[in-house]
Amino acid sequence: MIFRNQSSSIKKTNRISKDELKNKYGSNSYEFTQNDKDEIFVCSMHKELDLIELDQLLQTVGWSRRPVRRVKRALEFSILVVGLWKHDDKFPRLVGFARCTGDGVLEATVWDVAVNPVYQGLGLGKELMKYILKELKNIGISKVTLFADADVVSFYKRQGWVLEPRGSKCAFWYAN
Amino acid sequence: MIFRNQSSSIKKTNRISKDELKNKYGSNSYEFTQNDKDEIFVCSMHKELDLIELDQLLQTVGWSRRPVRRVKRALEFSILVVGLWKHDDKFPRLVGFARCTGDGVLEATVWDVAVNPVYQGLGLGKELMKYILKELKNIGISKVTLFADADVVSFYKRQGWVLEPRGSKCAFWYAN
Repeated sequence: MIFRNQSSSIKKTNRISKDELKNKYGSNSYEFTQNDKDEIFVCSMHKELDLIELDQLLQTVGWSRRPVRRVKRALEFSILVVGLWKHDDKFPRLVGFARCTGDGVLEATVWDVAVNPVYQGLGLGKELMKYILKELKNIGISKVTLFADADVVSFYKRQGWVLEPRGSKCAFWYAN
Repeated sequence: MIFRNQSSSIKKTNRISKDELKNKYGSNSYEFTQNDKDEIFVCSMHKELDLIELDQLLQTVGWSRRPVRRVKRALEFSILVVGLWKHDDKFPRLVGFARCTGDGVLEATVWDVAVNPVYQGLGLGKELMKYILKELKNIGISKVTLFADADVVSFYKRQGWVLEPRGSKCAFWYAN
């Protein structure tokens, strides 16, 4: 995932009626737009994902394909699954995604943060992460971790994430 | 957690009868001992934990106390919870612990690896980790991660874990 020219021109909107927002995207959805732009984006943790559309999104960011059945199970066992939608009255389009695993109480780990390259550089990734952290906070989770590609380190740093190791902790990756 | 003088004298045993092992520790338990020693240790993913005993164990390794109710929920939502027991016919004693969160399919993260200091340096931590990785493999999970204190980096390295970042990945820790 590449983050270019982080935009600060994002603002929360109320262009979609409250009822429509809830009907289309479920409760706790978050609607926003860029200043002076018409496109509306929505973060939702309840709107059901089409697994084919998700697979296509993940392919646009260059990730290797994973069997749909396994992805389905992985989503079911994630504690938070968030879609970022480009709003459309009839056909909202999935342009971003992220999910968290964890115990729902003490720990959460963010995985698979993706924004369609066409929509990168607009500040969407930042909104997506803010939404996730807010929802995790609502659940009461105090410790959130993630593994990130080296080229997005600065993106997370700007948002207050602390890179480990900082003396006391190290990260490991086991693939066997 | 401090690992001293990793022992290679650990061996699987069958001193406890198969039925007794299953009755006391549940299926998939793993019984082992040190060469020429009488103490038997058992890794179990099914034997129920006494939360007070677990709290006491975690205190012996110097971890800050967490509310029992939250720990209970965290264990319920973990995908794998493993106790390491010093076997006793009547009163098995909890001397080690670890748990994993994850989606049960693609990702798992190991947390809270602890061995009572009295029993450190005997190779128990290694057996505990081997047991966990084996069980995760049985579930079909291919990617296992953990965050470790700097002083146990070498412990994990010796067991085949790869430290990140190695160019492509970085680890983050978010506490807010």
